[in-house]
Amino acid sequence: MSLTPSLERLAGAIASFPGLGRKSASRIAYHILNMTDSEATELINAINSARESISRCSKCQNLSETEICPICSDSRRDVTTICVVEDAKAAEVIESLHEYKGLYHVLHGVISPLDDIGPDDIAITELLARIDGSVKEVILATNPSTEGEATAMYIKMLLSPFGVKVTRLAYGLPVGASLEFADSVTLLRALEGRSDI
Amino acid sequence: MSLTPSLERLAGAIASFPGLGRKSASRIAYHILNMTDSEATELINAINSARESISRCSKCQNLSETEICPICSDSRRDVTTICVVEDAKAAEVIESLHEYKGLYHVLHGVISPLDDIGPDDIAITELLARIDGSVKEVILATNPSTEGEATAMYIKMLLSPFGVKVTRLAYGLPVGASLEFADSVTLLRALEGRSDI
Repeated sequence: MSLTPSLERLAGAIASFPGLGRKSASRIAYHILNMTDSEATELINAINSARESISRCSKCQNLSETEICPICSDSRRDVTTICVVEDAKAAEVIESLHEYKGLYHVLHGVISPLDDIGPDDIAITELLARIDGSVKEVILATNPSTEGEATAMYIKMLLSPFGVKVTRLAYGLPVGASLEFADSVTLLRALEGRSDI
Repeated sequence: MSLTPSLERLAGAIASFPGLGRKSASRIAYHILNMTDSEATELINAINSARESISRCSKCQNLSETEICPICSDSRRDVTTICVVEDAKAAEVIESLHEYKGLYHVLHGVISPLDDIGPDDIAITELLARIDGSVKEVILATNPSTEGEATAMYIKMLLSPFGVKVTRLAYGLPVGASLEFADSVTLLRALEGRSDI
């Protein structure tokens, strides 16, 4: 009998957030309890507004509050390159580099037979529909996991009839890391991908 | 231009939670976006229900959904001992030890002149009102910080006319810690508080 039932319920709802354990969840529940009314209203409005106003860009499937997302409608972007990512978060991370000037395609998942997610459950059809004469390169930037890898291979196979260049992000040692702590698979990939200096 | 404005707003509201940085907040914002409708409804109902149904126990000032909290109304508790804590979280932590059988008193803050919090802004008057012939010991369990320490000293002074025993939690090395990493103040307190074995 420590938390009151309502606080227990709130902490339970928060504990489902990614990266939060039971202790952090209960700390945040107390924080929400101590919020001013206007802070609490803003939190709830922000949740509702995000969930109501955000849908998918009809071109790249990225999260967007408009029919066509700001990136797809930006005439300065390089329409010859499409970077395929698993989710909107990944597109955000690449975008934050301020280096990539092409377009994105967000799959919203990866093929994962164990989770019963097949090719038709992610936005692959929408990607193929975008491959026309203007697209020169498709960068497969799914995560370096088994599922991400398998999804990339599957998409590469589907893209081969289009004659478009298909690339994959490089594997190797993270910058600043020590060889000592690199796992053997990463080290092997770094060796395979070695380049002249 | 990475997050959409609504997602940015939601991540901003979440970033104010304790212990969360900007990256975790944006990760949680995406998670909330991907919740099912029923999960999102449950989250919002849990927030509203906690904020509406929880107030303070009229005796110990701990958070409670009833006029008198379950601990104060439990006849098996030892009413001769009151443990004074800064907040409901601290009472929860002590309660989770399943060792302390007395009552609590929640101050809801500590005296902190820098933050403009004086003795009248925390529940000290309510504590004094509880000191009658039946209370034998008051355990001051405020945090081992400057403010917690000052608040404890101030309460000790107010309690002296009542002739009640006033104690403070022990300072010392955390169990399992190494001397090497202990800060000098803690080490000094551990030395001062040494006991025969």
